[in-house]
Amino acid sequence: MIAEVLGVGTELLLGDIANTNAQFLSKALAGLGISVYGHTAVGDNPARLRAALNHAFTKADIVVACGGLGPTQDDITKEVSAQYFGRQMIVDEPSWQAIQRRFEGRELPDSVIRNATVPEGSTLLPNHHGSAPGVCIEQDGKTLILLPGPPHELEPMFMKYAVPFLRQKTDLVFLSRTLKIVGVGESTVETMLKDIIDTQTNPTIAPYAKLTEVALRITASAPDEAAAKQLIDPVAKEIYSRLGRHIYGEDDDCLAQAILHILENQGQTLAIAESCTGGLLTSAIVDIPGSSKVLQESVITYSNEAKITRLGIPRELIKAHGAVSPQTAAAMAEGIAKTSGTGIGISTTGIAGPEGGTKEKPIGLVYIGLHIKGATHTKELRLIGDRNEIRNRAVVGALDMLRLHIKN
Amino acid sequence: MIAEVLGVGTELLLGDIANTNAQFLSKALAGLGISVYGHTAVGDNPARLRAALNHAFTKADIVVACGGLGPTQDDITKEVSAQYFGRQMIVDEPSWQAIQRRFEGRELPDSVIRNATVPEGSTLLPNHHGSAPGVCIEQDGKTLILLPGPPHELEPMFMKYAVPFLRQKTDLVFLSRTLKIVGVGESTVETMLKDIIDTQTNPTIAPYAKLTEVALRITASAPDEAAAKQLIDPVAKEIYSRLGRHIYGEDDDCLAQAILHILENQGQTLAIAESCTGGLLTSAIVDIPGSSKVLQESVITYSNEAKITRLGIPRELIKAHGAVSPQTAAAMAEGIAKTSGTGIGISTTGIAGPEGGTKEKPIGLVYIGLHIKGATHTKELRLIGDRNEIRNRAVVGALDMLRLHIKN
Repeated sequence: MIAEVLGVGTELLLGDIANTNAQFLSKALAGLGISVYGHTAVGDNPARLRAALNHAFTKADIVVACGGLGPTQDDITKEVSAQYFGRQMIVDEPSWQAIQRRFEGRELPDSVIRNATVPEGSTLLPNHHGSAPGVCIEQDGKTLILLPGPPHELEPMFMKYAVPFLRQKTDLVFLSRTLKIVGVGESTVETMLKDIIDTQTNPTIAPYAKLTEVALRITASAPDEAAAKQLIDPVAKEIYSRLGRHIYGEDDDCLAQAILHILENQGQTLAIAESCTGGLLTSAIVDIPGSSKVLQESVITYSNEAKITRLGIPRELIKAHGAVSPQTAAAMAEGIAKTSGTGIGISTTGIAGPEGGTKEKPIGLVYIGLHIKGATHTKELRLIGDRNEIRNRAVVGALDMLRLHIKN
Repeated sequence: MIAEVLGVGTELLLGDIANTNAQFLSKALAGLGISVYGHTAVGDNPARLRAALNHAFTKADIVVACGGLGPTQDDITKEVSAQYFGRQMIVDEPSWQAIQRRFEGRELPDSVIRNATVPEGSTLLPNHHGSAPGVCIEQDGKTLILLPGPPHELEPMFMKYAVPFLRQKTDLVFLSRTLKIVGVGESTVETMLKDIIDTQTNPTIAPYAKLTEVALRITASAPDEAAAKQLIDPVAKEIYSRLGRHIYGEDDDCLAQAILHILENQGQTLAIAESCTGGLLTSAIVDIPGSSKVLQESVITYSNEAKITRLGIPRELIKAHGAVSPQTAAAMAEGIAKTSGTGIGISTTGIAGPEGGTKEKPIGLVYIGLHIKGATHTKELRLIGDRNEIRNRAVVGALDMLRLHIKN
């Protein structure tokens, strides 16, 4: 079963909105075992919509179109679809009554009856969050599903009514499991897994690079969920054995959350001293609801003076080694743990640029300090990118160092 | 001039990511006077990509494709494009050298040379935020532009290099001026300017709402830039007279930068005490290069204990009024200015959720404290949204309060 997602609306082509419906529908269709081979978006233009429908059905058995079901003149999807299949437009009485109930006590604009006007012989999908019902047309081996554009109407309608309709048409289930990887880049992951990636067809394995991490998606198709899981599990096991500690979680896990979860279970407390990351590391932790149980406080000691007064770092130490040095990173981590009374102190100091780099200490040089279980460790990072990228990569470097220490 | 935007990547068809590049490119192309008639997305499949390219050029003069320029096996856009135009793939020496410089001092994976391998005879667009350059191919009246998929690489590359390249192809100049607005919502802006927005056709005026601010884009088309500017200027003047102090800057200005610029000119120093914003306010300041001249230090006093020990706030004050109160916000602002020795102290304390709200102090209640020129002011915000939105809106509320005080 192959599907195409067709977005209808000039607002998409002007860039006024992103086509998030295509994302939602793709994910939902994949879960049904229906392969999406393409997305298309066209404006509110009958000839171009007709051409797009035509072209979509040369590639797909199922076309899911969204947008253009409304009552205004530029809502043309139902009319064009009716013409495409050679059908008349009729008023659907139950839909029209539902709309009249919806508007009860308020003035009903004349155009609203267009919401209840549909191609003859369609299967309709009730709309609990708006006026226009969804429309399914089956003819000549083609299935066309028309959905309203607003996501808060489309999404519940699709899940409640289109999913059961489509489930009858498929015999395979698609299951995915995503491994979240930190501390190695996309190329390295691919090199480490090249033989598996190249030879696997079911499940398939695909790496996706983000700014600071890599997601590895394992997808299997099978007659049922249990069989799909059986295909995925041994492959995931093999990947775990190769990437080991670089895998920090799965699916919707995020790095800061994974760390907080461990720290909370261990009853540990954390304090942070940031220099180059300037609040970004703390913010990544505070983003997670409930982080206040673990994180006691943070200081952003941007100036040397602040490092001395807030953290009790000896002036001579900074003078001897510089603010960007493993010694200062270590002293910051120890200082914040001591002054905050926490078991763990973590620190960052580095050169985020665009100014301030030297030959010995170039832009991108960052030291992480970690004081934990009475001992202090440091890590040197040499990061690439602009100021913002370096700061984000330093945050992940610090979180990953912490993760590896609390996991051991 | 008609364009088609072509997204390449199986992650789009699986619904892992939304095609936000199509939105960005549509808006940018519209600004150049180039009409986008369609979007397409295809997976990393050579035959289907080839078919999509073919079909796109039946509709458009210009195809802008994004994604699939990277070093891994599933990055096929350049190869398929070279085949489409009957060209060889060659290693571009300057690009290869740029990549080697980028990786200096670190191990260079074998596959990385694919980033510098491009169709022969292409115009290349430098990539300042990644390894793969963009590619422009012109042949048989067709223009194909290939861009990297990650938005933080694509967007600056498009604006800096593809825009001048495309500008040569159009006979009208489109000029835009964007007014940056804070402290009022999109609907309010639209109501205040309704008569101008409705009647203007050249320039056009369009508000774009972001999470914490509104951008108002004034766009004029004319034979040359000077004529376009003459159309824009009187409209901008009228908008300034209506929105006044809500406009904090133009075009690429950002709120934190505008504030730092004023503070630096005035020779002022700043320290920050954050509670609910948890590092996000400091991070917004540290994002700006050179911020260390103004920002001395920050503390994130998440716990009451930290507020007492780091900022010298009397325990009784917190006990009497609560941590989320104007009194505590004021004491935090005074405390951080005093302990850091800065002229300005700014603080945030509030309830970001999802837990912790009460009837008297609901989720979204945030107090800002500002100690400046020897006096202390507080502001109460009642914000909507999830934890992340509340924290971001609190940051902008704090920055805007500071801006209005230093401007006066």
